Amino acid sequence: MTTIDLNADLGESFGRWTLGDDEAMLDVVTSANVACGFHAGDPRGLLRVCELAAERGVVVGAQVGYRDLAGFGRRFIDLDPADLTADVVYQLGALQGICAATGTTVRYVKPHGALYNAVVHHRAQAEAVVEAVRRVDPTLPLLGLPGSALLDAAGAAGLATVTEAFADRAYTASGTLVPRSEDGAVLRDPDAVAARAVRMVVAGEVEAADGAVVRVGARSLCVHGDSPGAVSMATAVRSRLEAAGVELRPFVTPSD
Amino acid sequence: MTTIDLNADLGESFGRWTLGDDEAMLDVVTSANVACGFHAGDPRGLLRVCELAAERGVVVGAQVGYRDLAGFGRRFIDLDPADLTADVVYQLGALQGICAATGTTVRYVKPHGALYNAVVHHRAQAEAVVEAVRRVDPTLPLLGLPGSALLDAAGAAGLATVTEAFADRAYTASGTLVPRSEDGAVLRDPDAVAARAVRMVVAGEVEAADGAVVRVGARSLCVHGDSPGAVSMATAVRSRLEAAGVELRPFVTPSD
Amino acid sequence: MTTIDLNADLGESFGRWTLGDDEAMLDVVTSANVACGFHAGDPRGLLRVCELAAERGVVVGAQVGYRDLAGFGRRFIDLDPADLTADVVYQLGALQGICAATGTTVRYVKPHGALYNAVVHHRAQAEAVVEAVRRVDPTLPLLGLPGSALLDAAGAAGLATVTEAFADRAYTASGTLVPRSEDGAVLRDPDAVAARAVRMVVAGEVEAADGAVVRVGARSLCVHGDSPGAVSMATAVRSRLEAAGVELRPFVTPSD
Amino acid sequence: MTTIDLNADLGESFGRWTLGDDEAMLDVVTSANVACGFHAGDPRGLLRVCELAAERGVVVGAQVGYRDLAGFGRRFIDLDPADLTADVVYQLGALQGICAATGTTVRYVKPHGALYNAVVHHRAQAEAVVEAVRRVDPTLPLLGLPGSALLDAAGAAGLATVTEAFADRAYTASGTLVPRSEDGAVLRDPDAVAARAVRMVVAGEVEAADGAVVRVGARSLCVHGDSPGAVSMATAVRSRLEAAGVELRPFVTPSD
Repeated sequence: MTTIDLNADLGESFGRWTLGDDEAMLDVVTSANVACGFHAGDPRGLLRVCELAAERGVVVGAQVGYRDLAGFGRRFIDLDPADLTADVVYQLGALQGICAATGTTVRYVKPHGALYNAVVHHRAQAEAVVEAVRRVDPTLPLLGLPGSALLDAAGAAGLATVTEAFADRAYTASGTLVPRSEDGAVLRDPDAVAARAVRMVVAGEVEAADGAVVRVGARSLCVHGDSPGAVSMATAVRSRLEAAGVELRPFVTPSD
Repeated sequence: MTTIDLNADLGESFGRWTLGDDEAMLDVVTSANVACGFHAGDPRGLLRVCELAAERGVVVGAQVGYRDLAGFGRRFIDLDPADLTADVVYQLGALQGICAATGTTVRYVKPHGALYNAVVHHRAQAEAVVEAVRRVDPTLPLLGLPGSALLDAAGAAGLATVTEAFADRAYTASGTLVPRSEDGAVLRDPDAVAARAVRMVVAGEVEAADGAVVRVGARSLCVHGDSPGAVSMATAVRSRLEAAGVELRPFVTPSD
Repeated sequence: MTTIDLNADLGESFGRWTLGDDEAMLDVVTSANVACGFHAGDPRGLLRVCELAAERGVVVGAQVGYRDLAGFGRRFIDLDPADLTADVVYQLGALQGICAATGTTVRYVKPHGALYNAVVHHRAQAEAVVEAVRRVDPTLPLLGLPGSALLDAAGAAGLATVTEAFADRAYTASGTLVPRSEDGAVLRDPDAVAARAVRMVVAGEVEAADGAVVRVGARSLCVHGDSPGAVSMATAVRSRLEAAGVELRPFVTPSD
Repeated sequence: MTTIDLNADLGESFGRWTLGDDEAMLDVVTSANVACGFHAGDPRGLLRVCELAAERGVVVGAQVGYRDLAGFGRRFIDLDPADLTADVVYQLGALQGICAATGTTVRYVKPHGALYNAVVHHRAQAEAVVEAVRRVDPTLPLLGLPGSALLDAAGAAGLATVTEAFADRAYTASGTLVPRSEDGAVLRDPDAVAARAVRMVVAGEVEAADGAVVRVGARSLCVHGDSPGAVSMATAVRSRLEAAGVELRPFVTPSD
């Protein structure tokens, strides 16, 4: 039977400010990339989302980012790699503490926002993130883009890697994502996105922006958690996958 | 043989700003209360101080505080207890991550600054701190003032407690500290402080401000790490204690 | 003709996080208490709200608060008065800069959240706020609760004061607000609140929680901007006041 | 008579953390680049440094930077220009408030750290800084490197510009600064630096790292304020200039 993991960014509220509907998303996804306080996520909100994840058996990953609340971690920061390693160690530990307090554990690491984009190509930052994970817990896999510097560096350091794909993003003929700055980079029709998700998972392929059919292999699909229609989009993806006989299952087992 | 622990606040630099001489202090103390990033302590600096502590066999404790870099955690904040619990969970986890990355572990918890003062009397905040420790790791002892609400609450929750005394602070006849706002509250002569430390540890007593002799029982002595003469003061205390045949030893074993 | 000012807290979003509908509220109120970055308000968002206010002739006031993004300024902080004065000077200047860049000016000052509550009774903090305003621009009035330490201190320092009332808050028989922690402290029915607003403004009285009729004199009514029904509540208050022949007008002229 | 301005970065402490000796430096320099709170500078410390500057007739400029306390503004941040403009407006206004409260005024603007380096070449960020100054107060000059994108953009926007040179930095044969990452980029001998300063100011030339003599025209010399020997270095430069008959004078008059 074909299986796939669904992951989304959660825990991205901060104090008085709410972002997304974490509780509803946790009924849809199988893995939650939980913010760690540097780009979003206040400790009390993080406790709540990890508690809800634990109740539902949703796997928790550490969504580490740049220290930039004002920019939500979406602006590249030219950090010294040693500073970045330390920042990731700190965030990962903080979320491990939150998880320990809620009866769950951090099971993987996924960079957020501008850091996610940076470590596709920026080898020094990619290695800095990997070094942090290796030093805190070398059994944790890194979730990222196939072919990224991050997954390369993780593999070189002996860490496990997990690839992901995006059902709501346009692809180029060479299998990379069309940049968000281009028209049509993000797909917004739930039906189209859900159909795309099924084709990605069942047939292992996606139609690129130019009509070419591209191979795409991924153990996880990323759905977005903070846009207005996020919950219905994610629900559509999940329903269509289940209807196609795909089993939704985290890429790590929830409790080992 | 009489033994005593020496603890000091370390890791209180932040980015470009340096406070104290952590490396020198780590050659004197047996336990390091390491800041956790909310009142002081940037991740890279924390990695460094925990690495140095690990090399020297100095025990690391989590010095948790209010989220107040601008005030260095020295201003009371009237936090909702649930927020305080979450803030302590987060900080404790973060330092555990730092320790994991440097081959050591967090072995105790000690509140910092205004939080330290608050939890002497403020039961709700004391219970909130204890609740955080209990949820993250109930084997961790709390280090604090004898008779404080913190240690009461810790005991009630089944956590271990460790009492501390201050060789450089004036005591009242009833055994409490003379408030810092009063003249003579802080003693600055290394010889006098060192002699006082010996009497505290060997005879279990201290001369109060009014001349009365007060019983003082403590498993740890706190020395200050961030004043200009901190290192020489701490060194004087340690030398005099050793000369008096006291063994300096952490109150927890460095590696179990 | 009877006139009244309507004020609301605006500019309280922060980066990725949106709070309230500032644009809609600016079509209803006559004075905007704009956040200054310490409890809420990122610079770009502040530029936007001040620009919109300037376009509509809505008067801008500086809504100064504690430096506490995580707590939204809703937690009392026991600041040294000299620190509080400096924090208010800084925030007031920052908003003046934002206003200068958008063709408007700061015309009054109103404390936010826990600081607002503190300066009802806390004389040292009240005087610290007043001292800041006096040093930056002694022509700026302070907006606050009748009988508060803040307005007393402002008067003593020779600053102008403006009193406000709350149409959606229950009053005690002695004319103070029923604390939010008590049931019925906040009224939620737009019709009832609007009727109350008219009685406050036209007759200068309000029915207290125990049924007594209390005199209330205020030059401004505060409406809330960040709850889900905020816009419709404020619109109801404004419409009913206009229907009763009350002119809505800022307590300072928009451009002098 | 030849005149020159001496500028240094001041006000870079933060809360409990002290950096440099502002009071001593204010007896040496004629212009103070005062931090604005985003990379350094807490409001109370800023009040103090501006008060001291006012007493001595030292001119105050706004040293604006990236919002990055942990990195001291020394890390490039890839900000949206509109965000950068807003951040600079906010910081400039904040320092204007501090100055209003201390009887002085902001008389120029100089970017700090990584922003200073970025706006040498990064046209969008340079224009964003200029746009902020233009919108807050178009009479304020920008202080920067000759030939920088910043001064170009300022000139294009009709703002005044002031060039500066560095007596303690090595120059290339083409008149640019040798990058700090190269050996010998920073000169540390007070005598050599002071002699260099005299030659720069009196003869308008400097010996480049390869021995070539390069023309250097600058209305201000930058001396550093936060290194251990900063005060004695700055004092040596000032004394040698005075001995050579150069008048030390701010590039703007202290009070007009």
